[in-house]
Amino acid sequence: MRNVTKRRASPEVLEAIAAIVGGDRVSTNSSVLEHHCKGETYHDLEPADAVVFAETTEEVSAIARICNNHSVPVIPFGTGTSVEGGTAAPFGGICVDLSRMNDVLHVSREDMDAKVQAGVTRKQLNSHLRDTGLFFPIDPGADASIGGMASTRASGTNAVRYGTMKDNLLGLTVVLPNGSVVHTGGRAKKSSAGYDLTRLFCGAEGTLGIITEVTVRLHGIPEKVGAATCAFRTIEDAVECVIAVIQHGIPIARVELVDEVQIKASNSFSKLSMTVAPTLFMEFHGSPASVNDQIERVTAIAEDVGGSKFEWADDPEHRDRLWQARHDAYYAILALKPGSRAWTTDTCVPISHLADCILAAKKSVIAHDLTASIVGHVGDGNFHSIICIDPNDRDEVARARAFNSELVERAISVGGTCTGEHGIGVGKIPYLAREQADAMPLMWAIKTAIDPKNVMNPGKVLPMPF
Amino acid sequence: MRNVTKRRASPEVLEAIAAIVGGDRVSTNSSVLEHHCKGETYHDLEPADAVVFAETTEEVSAIARICNNHSVPVIPFGTGTSVEGGTAAPFGGICVDLSRMNDVLHVSREDMDAKVQAGVTRKQLNSHLRDTGLFFPIDPGADASIGGMASTRASGTNAVRYGTMKDNLLGLTVVLPNGSVVHTGGRAKKSSAGYDLTRLFCGAEGTLGIITEVTVRLHGIPEKVGAATCAFRTIEDAVECVIAVIQHGIPIARVELVDEVQIKASNSFSKLSMTVAPTLFMEFHGSPASVNDQIERVTAIAEDVGGSKFEWADDPEHRDRLWQARHDAYYAILALKPGSRAWTTDTCVPISHLADCILAAKKSVIAHDLTASIVGHVGDGNFHSIICIDPNDRDEVARARAFNSELVERAISVGGTCTGEHGIGVGKIPYLAREQADAMPLMWAIKTAIDPKNVMNPGKVLPMPF
Repeated sequence: MRNVTKRRASPEVLEAIAAIVGGDRVSTNSSVLEHHCKGETYHDLEPADAVVFAETTEEVSAIARICNNHSVPVIPFGTGTSVEGGTAAPFGGICVDLSRMNDVLHVSREDMDAKVQAGVTRKQLNSHLRDTGLFFPIDPGADASIGGMASTRASGTNAVRYGTMKDNLLGLTVVLPNGSVVHTGGRAKKSSAGYDLTRLFCGAEGTLGIITEVTVRLHGIPEKVGAATCAFRTIEDAVECVIAVIQHGIPIARVELVDEVQIKASNSFSKLSMTVAPTLFMEFHGSPASVNDQIERVTAIAEDVGGSKFEWADDPEHRDRLWQARHDAYYAILALKPGSRAWTTDTCVPISHLADCILAAKKSVIAHDLTASIVGHVGDGNFHSIICIDPNDRDEVARARAFNSELVERAISVGGTCTGEHGIGVGKIPYLAREQADAMPLMWAIKTAIDPKNVMNPGKVLPMPF
Repeated sequence: MRNVTKRRASPEVLEAIAAIVGGDRVSTNSSVLEHHCKGETYHDLEPADAVVFAETTEEVSAIARICNNHSVPVIPFGTGTSVEGGTAAPFGGICVDLSRMNDVLHVSREDMDAKVQAGVTRKQLNSHLRDTGLFFPIDPGADASIGGMASTRASGTNAVRYGTMKDNLLGLTVVLPNGSVVHTGGRAKKSSAGYDLTRLFCGAEGTLGIITEVTVRLHGIPEKVGAATCAFRTIEDAVECVIAVIQHGIPIARVELVDEVQIKASNSFSKLSMTVAPTLFMEFHGSPASVNDQIERVTAIAEDVGGSKFEWADDPEHRDRLWQARHDAYYAILALKPGSRAWTTDTCVPISHLADCILAAKKSVIAHDLTASIVGHVGDGNFHSIICIDPNDRDEVARARAFNSELVERAISVGGTCTGEHGIGVGKIPYLAREQADAMPLMWAIKTAIDPKNVMNPGKVLPMPF
């Protein structure tokens, strides 16, 4: 395999790109470079050689063609909220910032879809939709760009009801390494027309091409939203409750597990007085009758497994307060160790193994002498351990790494995955190679066929071959 | 591009395969060959040179390796219910019959998933699940194999609520052309781990490899099922009703449109006395309270657009009777022209264009002097025109072809697709090339990377290149 060493963008390349976009949209300023590589991550990342602010698909195409001709890496950038180092430039190259491509191109109320440029963020799209009665449900926490979310196969708290990015994409515009522009999918709600290129680029993390436009499904804003919390004696009880809710086909919109460590941290950080116990945070969407029906049925299930009395809220302000411990989880746990950074794990397992995996993780946190809580998108079997680390404490970083490895090994051993929603980036490459061992040659065959010079986001997702 | 001419399986190849599976599982009997190529289709199809009855993934792997070494085509076969000629062998080769690979390997009630061999049919799986409280919802009509359904990205009447095959796959075991075996996906409900190979093979119609095992999501059998029919003055009114139902987020499980031509044919065929008018056939799943809520809301919406009084049913027998006109549609329309065969179109369009497209199709049926009805998975914008043709009447076949071409052109012009659920096969290759024009080189690049000798189901899906 070629091209696994540094390939700096030469002045010639920068000039050729400046000739396309204008010199004022090509930056080699060190703080701009730094800003474009850091992400929301514990990784130490290397910046690109230059950042180019693209404004059209045609510009992205021209930039890709120039870089490909010179074998210079291209690193797509949306909002820089990657958790696994997707914004790094380990082999140098050009960071293509798509944040100025932020037009909502088309919204159809009847068809409940929207076409946006890749730099549109999810909050921007939802603001734009305000008067339509529709919303875009994928909520990974950060206000990520829709292009980045598609590239990472992102999801978040609403996925248990509304699916992940892969389920909400109808079509993409993608710039390939050679600069050609491909339109995948379409606007039909379903299709059996040829290879599913939309799903191939979704989750490829920019290693096969740069997504410049995205057509997404929208959903009707529910007539009523009800929120609730319920404390449980044990993690097992909380998980058992969720399994029963899902088995009964109750269309719960959100169901998040927050462990007692996190509740304690949140009580302190957000000045709350929640019971310090494993707690489910829930949200129900639907008609008033449907929400009431869901509430009744979930209450009965929770009672059966010894859950506490429910706290309820249905107006937005009260709902926000009720969910505050969940919303503030990240900052609350970091506040336990001032100056620390977060290392967030992301395993996802079959739900029958969820309680075991969480309990094992909690034991392992203690064994490795770490400060960490657990929050989880428990309806999908996906949970995060948020570990507070001092990046300068090498021993602590090593212990966090060992903890994460154990977590991943356990997840893989029960048929789960090292990443439910954060992606592979630079941080999980060895785990992908473990988890999808017999598929690695096939992934490389696809990569090589589409990107023979390995210019598209090299050093991400796939382990260096052979 | 090589290998686009006939490549017959030589006696040497047949002997090598017989040495793996035993001579009694290799057949060159002409009626066996004929049976394995006909499908449920109007196409004239060429049979393979031999049919091999495989029983394990290892056997499929060995067969693929032998065929690849000799550049002999491999045509996977499940139940032979392909509509678009997926079972044909236009370049000769070996048909690999997977129907004996029909073990349900694993079912998990807690995780609501099942792993099956590719030859398990959807009805067989649902029988197997009878005592679990779970079911597999994808219902394309025919009792297709799960492997075939995955390969075709099949869906059917339940897709509006439960999604299509792509949404219900967790993982696959696939034999690649060179005989290597790849496991894609896993058992986690969601994953961001590397390229989505599961979705790549789903809908590839056996042109990239042979699916031998499938892990699918299951769903809880709803506590209550309610069925209904409602007649409308016009197609537009019926579609407007469906749009409103979907916009309101009512989780309708099935909503099928049957036009007045079909109702008339069904009245005669099934001795019914339904009002001869465009009619919606609906089904609602959920708790008793939820089903009642859905019924109330849909009734109100239908009244608003001038729908008739609803006919209701909730016990299975009565539901079947109510839906009989929909269930018998295929045979009822064929009975209008005894001795005819069906040519079923499959366009899928954004729902805002559905009424227009259906009305244009109905005019076009008259203009081309055809006998055809329309039934549709209207919640997804997918509709079928079932055309009765005499395969020996060349002029009629040509008129049907012209009609279908117009239908497809119109669908593509509004952002839709030539195939919502039947696949491309041999029948829709030129339409795929029209619809996904700029993606064809990319599809070929993937095909060539994975199947360089073009042995996997050649002559399907992709147009002959360049």
